[in-house]
Amino acid sequence: MLTYDLSEKNKYYDLYRAIRGDILSGNLKHGDKLPSKRSLAEHLGVSVITVQTAYEQLLAEGYIQSEQRRGYFVAEVNPQSELLYSPLTHVEEREERYDLDLCSGRAPVKLFPFSTWSKLMRETLSEEGDHLLERVPCDGDFALKEAIAAYLYRFRGFKVDARHIVIGAGAEYLYGVIVQLLGREKPYAVENPAYARVPQTYALNGAKCKYIAVDGCGVKVDEVEKSGACALHISPSHQYPTGAVMPAANRSKLLAWAQDESAYIIEDDYDSEFRLFGKPLQTMAGMNGERVIYLNTFSKTLAPSLRMGYMVLPPRLYADYRRLFGNSANVVPLFEQKTLAKMLDGGYFERHVNRLRNYYRTVRAKLLEIIEKLPFEKEIIETGGGLHLTVRLPSFESDEEIKATAKKRGIKIKCVSDYLSAPDEQYDRVAVINYSSVEEEALSTLCRQLSTHNSL
Amino acid sequence: MLTYDLSEKNKYYDLYRAIRGDILSGNLKHGDKLPSKRSLAEHLGVSVITVQTAYEQLLAEGYIQSEQRRGYFVAEVNPQSELLYSPLTHVEEREERYDLDLCSGRAPVKLFPFSTWSKLMRETLSEEGDHLLERVPCDGDFALKEAIAAYLYRFRGFKVDARHIVIGAGAEYLYGVIVQLLGREKPYAVENPAYARVPQTYALNGAKCKYIAVDGCGVKVDEVEKSGACALHISPSHQYPTGAVMPAANRSKLLAWAQDESAYIIEDDYDSEFRLFGKPLQTMAGMNGERVIYLNTFSKTLAPSLRMGYMVLPPRLYADYRRLFGNSANVVPLFEQKTLAKMLDGGYFERHVNRLRNYYRTVRAKLLEIIEKLPFEKEIIETGGGLHLTVRLPSFESDEEIKATAKKRGIKIKCVSDYLSAPDEQYDRVAVINYSSVEEEALSTLCRQLSTHNSL
Repeated sequence: MLTYDLSEKNKYYDLYRAIRGDILSGNLKHGDKLPSKRSLAEHLGVSVITVQTAYEQLLAEGYIQSEQRRGYFVAEVNPQSELLYSPLTHVEEREERYDLDLCSGRAPVKLFPFSTWSKLMRETLSEEGDHLLERVPCDGDFALKEAIAAYLYRFRGFKVDARHIVIGAGAEYLYGVIVQLLGREKPYAVENPAYARVPQTYALNGAKCKYIAVDGCGVKVDEVEKSGACALHISPSHQYPTGAVMPAANRSKLLAWAQDESAYIIEDDYDSEFRLFGKPLQTMAGMNGERVIYLNTFSKTLAPSLRMGYMVLPPRLYADYRRLFGNSANVVPLFEQKTLAKMLDGGYFERHVNRLRNYYRTVRAKLLEIIEKLPFEKEIIETGGGLHLTVRLPSFESDEEIKATAKKRGIKIKCVSDYLSAPDEQYDRVAVINYSSVEEEALSTLCRQLSTHNSL
Repeated sequence: MLTYDLSEKNKYYDLYRAIRGDILSGNLKHGDKLPSKRSLAEHLGVSVITVQTAYEQLLAEGYIQSEQRRGYFVAEVNPQSELLYSPLTHVEEREERYDLDLCSGRAPVKLFPFSTWSKLMRETLSEEGDHLLERVPCDGDFALKEAIAAYLYRFRGFKVDARHIVIGAGAEYLYGVIVQLLGREKPYAVENPAYARVPQTYALNGAKCKYIAVDGCGVKVDEVEKSGACALHISPSHQYPTGAVMPAANRSKLLAWAQDESAYIIEDDYDSEFRLFGKPLQTMAGMNGERVIYLNTFSKTLAPSLRMGYMVLPPRLYADYRRLFGNSANVVPLFEQKTLAKMLDGGYFERHVNRLRNYYRTVRAKLLEIIEKLPFEKEIIETGGGLHLTVRLPSFESDEEIKATAKKRGIKIKCVSDYLSAPDEQYDRVAVINYSSVEEEALSTLCRQLSTHNSL
C-alpha cells in the first residue's frame, strides 16, 4: 500500500503531491491501480474526504483515470508534463556552457552603474513617497518623457515633442502596441535576416510578415515598394545582424514610399548609442516626423531586466494611441520611471554610456586582433558601429562547420543564416561576432590560448 | 514680419516651436503666407539654413504647405492635432470633478500601506544588490511565483503548482498573452455587460468577441455552448457590473463545455479578496486545472500603479507559453517582484487586505443606509461580495435621468447599460454603485446633506 507522511495542516495537498511525485518518478506506472479511497484512508489514518480530494485533483490534472466500478488507475503522463514537473529547469539553464558567448545581446552585469542606480532609487523613494502610487497616464510619466526628449536632442540631435513619447515595457511590448495601432490587415515588412524576435513578435500579435531581403545598404527598396505593407520595421543605422548602414538616398526613397502609401517606418534604433567611431547617424524620424515611429530601449545601455523602452509616435498616431489607450495605466512602474528620469537628467546615463563605449572599443579591438590572426581566409565586414560585426569565412564548408569549430574552442557563435526567415544565399558562411556580453578577461584567456596553440 | 527671440543654442528648434505656437494659437491663420527664408533669416539675424530647417520641420508635420514658386503657407490644422499641441491635457484631467465617484475602480491611495512597502523596497535593494539586474525568466521571478502559490492556498484554498504561474504587467497585458497563446481563429466569449476594457483588449489584440448575455446566475450557459468560442472570459465569483454569482451547477456545465470543445475558461477573479461576508467561493480553476486559466491582479488590493498581475496556466498551456516566450524576459521589473514576494511571505499583504475589507464593510453599510433613505422606489441587488452593488430604480424614466439626478448632487455614477456591448433590456434603469474609491469623509458629508435636505 502507498505510504506517505502527511503533515497535520495540509493533508490533502501533501497526499496529492506525494502520489503525483510517484507517478512522475515512475514509482507508479501507467495502468497501475490505486488503492480504494477507503482503504488508503484507513492505511494513512486520514479521512476518506482527504483521499477523495487528492484523487480528484489528480484526476482533474490528468495523472490518474477513473474507470467505472473498477477504481482509479495511473494515466499515461505525456512527456511534456513530465518535463514541466521535473525539478525546475529554465530554458536558459538547459543551455550549454561556453567560455565565450558571441551571441548574447546582454551587457555584462558588472558594467551597470549599480551604486548610482541604487542611490537614485533611494532618493526617488524619499522624495516621491506615496506619489509613487499614483496612476501613471497610458503613455508614461511626463518627467521621464521630457528627460528622454532632452536626451534625444543632446545625444542624437533629434528633436521630438516629449508629449508624443510612449513609455513601454521593452521593445517587444512596444511592437505589440504598434500592431494594435496600425491593425492587422496589411502585412508588416521586416528585414531578412533580423533578430528572430522581431518577426516572431509581429506574428504573435496576429500580424502577417513580409520578409524583405537585406544587402550592404539595408533593406532592398524595390522589394519594400512592392510589399503592400502598412509598416516597415528597420534599423537603418546599424542593421542586425548584417551591420548594413542605409545610405541617405535609400532613406529618402523609403520615406517617399511611406508618404505615398500612407505607411509607417518603424525605426528600431537599438544600438545607436554604440557607434564607436564617428558621430551617430541622423535618425529617419528626424527627417520625417509624420511617417516614422522611432523606437529604442535601455536594454543595451542599462540592463535588459529594467524592461524599459520608448517610442516616439507621429502626432496623428499619438492621437489614435490616446483614443485607444487613454483609459489604461502605463505598464512600467512609476518608481523605475522616476529613477530613470533622474539618471538621464543628472547626466549619469551619458557618463555611463561613455564608459560602456570605451569598454566595447577595447573589446572590439582585441577581437579584431584575434580574428586577424586566425589561420584561415576571412573577410571582416564592419561599419564602426554597434556591438557586433560579421566575418565571411569562405574556406569553411558550411555554417555548421563554422559553429562546430567555434564550439570545440568553447565559443558560442551564430551565423547570419541563423537570423534568416527566408533563405538568402549571399549570407552563406558569414559568422556574426556579437560582443555585447563579452568580458575582457575571457578575451585575454582566449588570446593566451591562441598564442600557445597558434590556431583556433 | 514674424519676430521671435531665439536662444543661442537651439535656434532652429526655437523658431520651429515659435511658428508652430502662432499657428496653433491662431496668430497665424490658414492660408497666411510665411516670409521667404532669406528675408526671415535676415530679419531674425540667423542663417538661412536655420529658417529652412524650421520650415522643413513644419512642413513635415503638416503645419505649413509649400506651393511651387509661391512660397510657404499656413496649412489647415485639423482639430485633432490642435488638441495634441494645446497645453498638455491628459484624458483624466479633462474629466469633470465630482464630490463622490461611484465609478472608479481605484482604492483610495491613503489606504495603501506605503511605509511597509517602502521599508520592503529598501530591504530588497540592500539584500539583492545587483542581482536585481539579472534577467527575469519570461514567466517571472520564482520567489514571487512561490509566494503567490502559497497565498492562493492560504487565502483561496486553491492549490497551484507555482511553476505554472505567469507574472505580467496587469490584467490587460495578460489578456494579450492569452490571445497570443490561444490564437485568433475562434472567437472569445465575453460577458455582456462587462468592464469595457475586457472586450476592447481582446479586440485590440486581434481577437473576435462573442457577447454572452448575463443573468442572475452569470453567463447564460446555452449561449456559451452555441458560441463556438475557444475561450470564455468570466468572473464567476462576482460578475461586474451585475454582481451575479455563478451557482455550482452552471460552473460544472461550463467546465463540461470547455472539456468537450477543448476550450478554456478564463476565470478573472478580480475582486475575490473583497468577499465581505462569508468565505470566498471556490475557484473554477480549483475544480479543473486543465481547462481553466485563473487570473488576478494586485490593482484592487495594492495599487493599480504597481501594474502587477498573474495567471495560473494549465500545464499544457504553460508548456506552450514557455515554447513561445522562453527567450523573452519578463516585463515586470525584478525589484517590484522581489518586494511583492516579501509583502506576501511576511504576511503584510493579508493584514493589509483585512484592513481594507473592514474599511469597505463600513463604507458599504453607510452607502446602503443612504440608499435605503432615498425617497423613491428602489431594489438593491447585492450578493455580499466585492466592491460594488447594483440598485434597480424603476421610478426613473431612463438611465440618463438617473445619471443626471446623481450629477446634480455631485455624484458620478454609471448604469449597467453603460457596460453593455450589445443591448439587453433586463438592465434598464439599474445603477451601479462601485465603492472602490469612496472615502469615508465624502460619505459623511453626503449623509449630512441628505438629513438636511431630506432628498437626493
